[in-house]
Amino acid sequence: MENFSKNQLERYPIYLKYFKELEKNGIQEISSPKIADKLGYSQEQVRKDLQAISGEPGKPKRGRSVEQLISDIETFLGYRDATTAVVIGTGHLGGALLNYPAFQGMGLEIVAGFDNDPEKVGTLMSGKMIFSSARLGDLLPRLNAHIAIICVPAHAAQGVVDEAVKFGAKGIWNFAPTHVTVPDGVVLENVNLASSLAVLSHHLSVELSRKKKQK
Amino acid sequence: MENFSKNQLERYPIYLKYFKELEKNGIQEISSPKIADKLGYSQEQVRKDLQAISGEPGKPKRGRSVEQLISDIETFLGYRDATTAVVIGTGHLGGALLNYPAFQGMGLEIVAGFDNDPEKVGTLMSGKMIFSSARLGDLLPRLNAHIAIICVPAHAAQGVVDEAVKFGAKGIWNFAPTHVTVPDGVVLENVNLASSLAVLSHHLSVELSRKKKQK
Repeated sequence: MENFSKNQLERYPIYLKYFKELEKNGIQEISSPKIADKLGYSQEQVRKDLQAISGEPGKPKRGRSVEQLISDIETFLGYRDATTAVVIGTGHLGGALLNYPAFQGMGLEIVAGFDNDPEKVGTLMSGKMIFSSARLGDLLPRLNAHIAIICVPAHAAQGVVDEAVKFGAKGIWNFAPTHVTVPDGVVLENVNLASSLAVLSHHLSVELSRKKKQK
Repeated sequence: MENFSKNQLERYPIYLKYFKELEKNGIQEISSPKIADKLGYSQEQVRKDLQAISGEPGKPKRGRSVEQLISDIETFLGYRDATTAVVIGTGHLGGALLNYPAFQGMGLEIVAGFDNDPEKVGTLMSGKMIFSSARLGDLLPRLNAHIAIICVPAHAAQGVVDEAVKFGAKGIWNFAPTHVTVPDGVVLENVNLASSLAVLSHHLSVELSRKKKQK
């Protein structure tokens, strides 16, 4: 399989969203320059990104079929085969993810939650059963869950990751605000809100100090 | 101000978390090679990252002061000056962010929420008042909110961003699963769960197909 960079992989859902809007508006063909212009990428990058996942080159005059592009990206991203996942830690953030309707269309099927809180265990959240975290070893293999979504507090994260991996999780989607490690052969993806906020805050302070100087 | 890449900025909260753990465990000095080893970065990168935000070079034998490193990063990231923010769209995700306790320690003070739902308007969520979205123009300037955190559905996102910018927001933190644009001089940072999931799913499928081949 071709090697895709993280930045490149992150662009495909953004292309997909745009192509679906085009389809909804009855637009059947689109050229790379137009895509580049709309999404703020270079034309070179758009051509490379789309070429990498489809066999079919665009036609210089007419562009590419929007329907084919949608099909290529959905197939590439695995949106047409569901992967089973569980959420570990069902506080505000975990609860929001249990209820995030867009995941269904992305091939992610969240089948259950796990929590330590005895008041939550045995209840339903967004239609999904919440189990005691003590039952991870018993239930993860039976649920055949490939992905564990980690939403516990920072201090508990590594312990929960270790357990999920031990009982068969092959992918860890970590939302806990801390650094965790996984063994070889397990895939780790972090959603670090602190890191995202750091980027925003830094650029904001640069922008604000630039404006002050102009005055 | 020096130019920092997005990847570099994203690393500082991860350093900070680690240095705070060291401090809690009574460790007062740390060397770049040890940091690199623990966090999985190259030594070269660690040295460059830390040099960029502190005047003081590390001592080859003893390493750097953990207390000084924490102070340097917190100052650089603006964690010691609060920036005021509002959350627009208080569904599950917006509600989770209104209640995210870690933001306080990161210099982000969320002062209010905005929503269209008449049942929510006038109520408190996590102690913060929810106002009608129709009052953005009236309230954003009075709240002196620099950052608007966008948690509305995809189709409503661009409209809400335009309004927030019109009424004074200088930074947009976009959690809506869509592409939005902002004018020059306004800072945009996206938290795109679809993109993050795309990276995870792709690497997972590569890993799983590798294992199949080995059998």
